[in-house]
Amino acid sequence: MEPLIKKVREYIIQNKLLDDTQRVVVGLSGGPDSVFLLHSLMLLKEEFKLQIYILHINHQLRGEESERDEKFCIELAQRWGLPIRVFRIKVEPYAKARKIGTEEASRNLRYCIYRLEAKRLGAKVALGHTADDRVETFLFHLIRGTGVSGLRSIPHSRDFIVRPLLRIFRREIWDYLKKHKIDFVRDSSNLSLFYTRNQIRRTLIPNLEQFNPHIREHIYHLTEIFEGIEEIVEKEIDKLWAEKCLLENPKIIVLKGDINKLSYLLFGGLVRRVIISFGFPEKGFNFGLVSRLKGATKGIYKLANHKDKKILAEKQKDIWLFFSHTFSPIPYEMELSTDSLELPDKLGQIEVKICQIPLEELKHSDETIGYIRGNKDKLKIRFPREGDRFIPFGASGGEIKLFRAMLEKGVPKLLRHYIPLVLVDNTIAWAGGLGISQLFRVNNANEKIIKIRWTGDIAEFMRRKELWRK
Amino acid sequence: MEPLIKKVREYIIQNKLLDDTQRVVVGLSGGPDSVFLLHSLMLLKEEFKLQIYILHINHQLRGEESERDEKFCIELAQRWGLPIRVFRIKVEPYAKARKIGTEEASRNLRYCIYRLEAKRLGAKVALGHTADDRVETFLFHLIRGTGVSGLRSIPHSRDFIVRPLLRIFRREIWDYLKKHKIDFVRDSSNLSLFYTRNQIRRTLIPNLEQFNPHIREHIYHLTEIFEGIEEIVEKEIDKLWAEKCLLENPKIIVLKGDINKLSYLLFGGLVRRVIISFGFPEKGFNFGLVSRLKGATKGIYKLANHKDKKILAEKQKDIWLFFSHTFSPIPYEMELSTDSLELPDKLGQIEVKICQIPLEELKHSDETIGYIRGNKDKLKIRFPREGDRFIPFGASGGEIKLFRAMLEKGVPKLLRHYIPLVLVDNTIAWAGGLGISQLFRVNNANEKIIKIRWTGDIAEFMRRKELWRK
Repeated sequence: MEPLIKKVREYIIQNKLLDDTQRVVVGLSGGPDSVFLLHSLMLLKEEFKLQIYILHINHQLRGEESERDEKFCIELAQRWGLPIRVFRIKVEPYAKARKIGTEEASRNLRYCIYRLEAKRLGAKVALGHTADDRVETFLFHLIRGTGVSGLRSIPHSRDFIVRPLLRIFRREIWDYLKKHKIDFVRDSSNLSLFYTRNQIRRTLIPNLEQFNPHIREHIYHLTEIFEGIEEIVEKEIDKLWAEKCLLENPKIIVLKGDINKLSYLLFGGLVRRVIISFGFPEKGFNFGLVSRLKGATKGIYKLANHKDKKILAEKQKDIWLFFSHTFSPIPYEMELSTDSLELPDKLGQIEVKICQIPLEELKHSDETIGYIRGNKDKLKIRFPREGDRFIPFGASGGEIKLFRAMLEKGVPKLLRHYIPLVLVDNTIAWAGGLGISQLFRVNNANEKIIKIRWTGDIAEFMRRKELWRK
Repeated sequence: MEPLIKKVREYIIQNKLLDDTQRVVVGLSGGPDSVFLLHSLMLLKEEFKLQIYILHINHQLRGEESERDEKFCIELAQRWGLPIRVFRIKVEPYAKARKIGTEEASRNLRYCIYRLEAKRLGAKVALGHTADDRVETFLFHLIRGTGVSGLRSIPHSRDFIVRPLLRIFRREIWDYLKKHKIDFVRDSSNLSLFYTRNQIRRTLIPNLEQFNPHIREHIYHLTEIFEGIEEIVEKEIDKLWAEKCLLENPKIIVLKGDINKLSYLLFGGLVRRVIISFGFPEKGFNFGLVSRLKGATKGIYKLANHKDKKILAEKQKDIWLFFSHTFSPIPYEMELSTDSLELPDKLGQIEVKICQIPLEELKHSDETIGYIRGNKDKLKIRFPREGDRFIPFGASGGEIKLFRAMLEKGVPKLLRHYIPLVLVDNTIAWAGGLGISQLFRVNNANEKIIKIRWTGDIAEFMRRKELWRK
């Protein structure tokens, strides 16, 4: 077996590219890479017990040349006795409709066809990407700005796509095709590449090669090293998340504040996970953001915008509070006629109960439970509004603004509009995180006592007052 | 405070650059970076309670210009009222004696002086490396070929060196100096840079900037991300080493053979650790080597060469055996007059004991213990030589070559010269890993029986025959 075919074979085995399939659809453009791909898979057909199908996509973007390529592929398939399917696609209308570039549009359409064919045949789709493509993609990501995941570059397999030539350089393919007198077509425009990619190939790589003729190999090796890093880093972030995440609610995530001491990599990984957890697109995540948050000490920061939603972050001494919402108060007011009420937006549940307990057992210090004097029928529940006033339990002064009382207690600013209040005759008798109002203090255990209990994960967080109290 | 000074201040605080010191020696060349470094540390002097010293090294490589720079630095020190020390060094003789380039020589001498001054004053040495230096070093490593650690580029601190300007770009420094009319000298030759580095600065970076004007910032961010990766990867390798390392001897390391399934990053990390464990320089470690070993199936591979030593690696089904030695047999022969003998090169210990035990309890299957007939006074110990012959216990055939017997049992090839033999009257009676010779079989429990016991970590490895037996 020729060394180059052996190299393809080893790459397939090492990366288990064809382990769970016998059917392979070869994406054939007619260019040297895909012709060599087809050729090598034909030589390995028996060993891997393959059934080979050919797929040619005619983008109809290069006039005569497109027709020539299609014809070449059909003839090649006939010569090898292989089934071929040709798809003729029109890229422009799709690109216009989606308002994307020609390149992105053809890529989308191509992968759409690959997916359909893979499904129809229960097959893998083999593509002719080479080590050079990998190196060029690495540089492309480097230039555009990327995290670690971009440097890993093109993967050897993903979903139904496999790339058996990913460790082989174009130079090797050309030499092989020339030596074995194997025909292929030449693409005059290299339309299959972005403009930037073309420039990387034509100017940047030759420039780098002046420094070191082996630069391609070096970069290729780096991409192989990066393949392992992502996995390790993700495992580390999993571990950190389990350790640092104090509350994970669809709207609120609380992390321990000491994460700022972590490296950029790990701190950034946690921030990225916050964004993903809230279902925001990763696009919002970038190094500038990470850098800003990592240096943050106290206050409110904007993390991401998506459609009409945003993520805000609040840093306090011991916590980072992330909040996913349109930042507006909840217009919610409800009479508490039942014994228990579900709050909106997963903010928990309020239960009320008439009870009688010894005076000395009444605790007013808990952030989620309160005992007040009053009549159960007149209770109302709502969330804080501007103008609300409150007399903190045990306070020597009189009435103060509710938001001021929250500020003094250290209730995170982002939570202040989402803390449930219990009102008696339109006066605030109890507020989550603050406790009961001095006005509703129980003085006599023989009085009618109402026990208020707030449950749910946010209530649980409020109970752990060492986390959020200044 | 000017934003740029604030940026220096934050970088110092975030990275704890001056936490355990009050004395700082500023390496002052007179160029814009080191002048700005001195300037900013003077502005932060009170806050950090600093005592500032100046150090100027005159390499005497640029004639008049070198003298001008020295004079400039002395005057600057006088103007600020700071103590200054000037070292005049001659680089060429040192470079010639060590057979290294001028650049490497001046670097070595410089760091030597930094170390002395740091020690003398109990101080940190602050150097004016900028974010651009970091970006250029990243590209330098990328071009030369590097693993992950090279991409981290220049660290903000190491030992007694700190680099407070590492997050600031040269552009920012120039703007600041111009705005504040602060004088500095210009280096006409940029001798402080390697030729390659100069080229990176003058041609490669401008080329990359044509693709993306923000490329410097992007690469700088990447280096910050890479700072965290090394630590995580090392932790993962620690874990893997504990799990996969079956034997760690100054000369022999055995790892589980399934490590070849790991990613390049982790597999390479383990190989690198083998090289370091044997005290070899890391230089021997490169991606080509890792790639070759990762694809290996069976046989012997050369891992590293250092002076007259080398590391060889042997792959068997379930193990990787790494062997650090000049690969030559041990010329060792000793009469066993005592009851116990220490073998050379940490190969273990041999104990012999006359005993009497029931015949049925004699076990010949253990690789480290044997019972033979014979006279204790006539025992000799040595290691295998070409030409040795042996009759395996229970073998139907007659005498065969000792190395053939080892081959058949699957004793790793690299170990075969290092397995102790016990001889009676110059005939091999017992061999580690093989057991006793048929000639010395105990037939009668009433006979005089000699118990041979081989201990030590290699003996322990040989006991676990499932690891090395085919």
